[in-house]
Amino acid sequence: MFDRTLADVGRRDWADDGDGGTARFATVGCGTYARDVSIPAMAAGEYAEPTVVVSGDAEKRAALTGEFGVTALDYDEFEAGVATDEYDAVYVATPNRLHLPHAETAAGHGKDVICEKPLEATVDRAESLVAACEDAGVRLMTAYRMQTDPVMRRLREFVAGGGIGELRRATGDFTFPVLAGDAGPEQWRLDGRLAGGGALFDVGVYPLNTARFLSGDDPVAVSATTRSPDPAFDEVEQHADARVEFDGWVGGFSGSYTGRPNTRLELLGADGRIAVRSAFEPDADREVVVETPEGTLEATGAGADETVEEFDYFAHATATGGAIDPDGRDGLVDVRTLAAALRSADAGERVEL
Amino acid sequence: MFDRTLADVGRRDWADDGDGGTARFATVGCGTYARDVSIPAMAAGEYAEPTVVVSGDAEKRAALTGEFGVTALDYDEFEAGVATDEYDAVYVATPNRLHLPHAETAAGHGKDVICEKPLEATVDRAESLVAACEDAGVRLMTAYRMQTDPVMRRLREFVAGGGIGELRRATGDFTFPVLAGDAGPEQWRLDGRLAGGGALFDVGVYPLNTARFLSGDDPVAVSATTRSPDPAFDEVEQHADARVEFDGWVGGFSGSYTGRPNTRLELLGADGRIAVRSAFEPDADREVVVETPEGTLEATGAGADETVEEFDYFAHATATGGAIDPDGRDGLVDVRTLAAALRSADAGERVEL
Repeated sequence: MFDRTLADVGRRDWADDGDGGTARFATVGCGTYARDVSIPAMAAGEYAEPTVVVSGDAEKRAALTGEFGVTALDYDEFEAGVATDEYDAVYVATPNRLHLPHAETAAGHGKDVICEKPLEATVDRAESLVAACEDAGVRLMTAYRMQTDPVMRRLREFVAGGGIGELRRATGDFTFPVLAGDAGPEQWRLDGRLAGGGALFDVGVYPLNTARFLSGDDPVAVSATTRSPDPAFDEVEQHADARVEFDGWVGGFSGSYTGRPNTRLELLGADGRIAVRSAFEPDADREVVVETPEGTLEATGAGADETVEEFDYFAHATATGGAIDPDGRDGLVDVRTLAAALRSADAGERVEL
Repeated sequence: MFDRTLADVGRRDWADDGDGGTARFATVGCGTYARDVSIPAMAAGEYAEPTVVVSGDAEKRAALTGEFGVTALDYDEFEAGVATDEYDAVYVATPNRLHLPHAETAAGHGKDVICEKPLEATVDRAESLVAACEDAGVRLMTAYRMQTDPVMRRLREFVAGGGIGELRRATGDFTFPVLAGDAGPEQWRLDGRLAGGGALFDVGVYPLNTARFLSGDDPVAVSATTRSPDPAFDEVEQHADARVEFDGWVGGFSGSYTGRPNTRLELLGADGRIAVRSAFEPDADREVVVETPEGTLEATGAGADETVEEFDYFAHATATGGAIDPDGRDGLVDVRTLAAALRSADAGERVEL
């Protein structure tokens, strides 16, 4: 049963304790999430270390230097190759449409790249980003933190071992009230050109990518509908509902930019069911219910901070030459799927991938 | 908060204790569900009474007469008007495509009709059924037992009162392993002509109709995909996933004819969330979670047997001349929606309603 798997929930299946060296990170783009979540996660990690930040904002640079003891660069200095001996890898956390030039710069410096999701604002640009890293011979990870969440990794093993039988259906929702924080309607997430998409691109990608991770499958077709009743969302979708067809099962994934915060993921198999609440919030206690013919397990509070895991995972791979699961290709599949979903919503037609 | 509403969960908002007379039912079609659930529910009811059964099977007729003391007729006798003074209303529980002729017979006898869902196998036939009852001046109820489930009625009041804010999304699943019981692959539910559809028609209609009931809204467009990997389901859909668009919100509803039994319904509002597990099984303890800005309530085991409620509700309306909410028009909306969903699945296109 799953409780045997879950008993070992904190296990890092990708590393042996203490092996490998560390990787030092330059963080490019220092928005709220990078400052409050990602850089502290690097600092907390075993293999990761934040050493450089890149920001266009002098105040942010000073504050981050004060808080983390990092070298702070502006974008011109980053492009010019200042302080390249102070970092081994680059974390790209800018608005989506700026991922490509910064990843190109990082690749030009010969640095491995971990890039926020979605990989870019358009399929063409995401493909260029992947190609730039491949051409330069640097590693590329798409920053899917759910793939390093210990609970999700244990669930993946459980699904792969036939714990719920053949997968039949996955559903997942992510409501992120994007205007509820400090950032107002001028933020880049509401700028269609910079973001590439709205709630589907930014948060709907979580249930999509996590279901792909848990199943090991890729989409074959998609159909979607979007709505933006509020004027603040005239450039990006405020609400999106996508139905994604896989070989043998169907996913129903939604993203919303307004409403009560809510995240959920559920997998229905021929023989069992997995339901996860608080599925996608950073460092949340995932509430997991696993039903199988052998019985039902409810578990909560298990696991570790998946963002610490994320940067440690990438740093470990960078330092040891290990493989990266959520690579550029993985990120590309989602950008293609999400872009096709938005085309589908416009056309009212199912789009094959 | 919802706990105040739920404290009163058993309340019959459609009757005052002891008002009205009773209605005597002729049950037409005596399959497993009618014998094991519906007729016992009539017998258990305050206003309903089973007095007549109609079956083509002499053994069933004898057994039901022995068990419930009912008069048993064959179909010719029912059509010929035998024993019409022994019943006030007709419960049609035959295969879907036979609903129309039996409802016509009942209407011809001047009897009110409660007809199983879906109303008929095709839109045209369902429209004819509604017209036949209207022309004869008899009442018609579509047998949506969830609409008389006390938990669902309290939830409807809570939603209508703004308990979770503006509705944004509803999702629901119903997996009913149709071959797991006594009935093999020869059963009518797998016969495309008799059934009109498969898992979507037969069980997917539950989350669809219940979400419509809770919201008070009707669909404006639908998009769906279906799969029938197993040869037993070559005439009807084995699995179906439908996305149903309403004015301002979207529903994602699924039905499956194979797999682990599973029912679920969830409503996401701008300010709250309602989740119901064991949502659609007959007389199950609904597990309800209600989240609002005021707090979270988890409730289980509340309520009454909604099938007893269903026949009492209809009997009370028949005896007192009261209105019927899940009327023929309500049933028609679902048949139109489900038929459009199957067309959508064939065409790969969104279909407007």
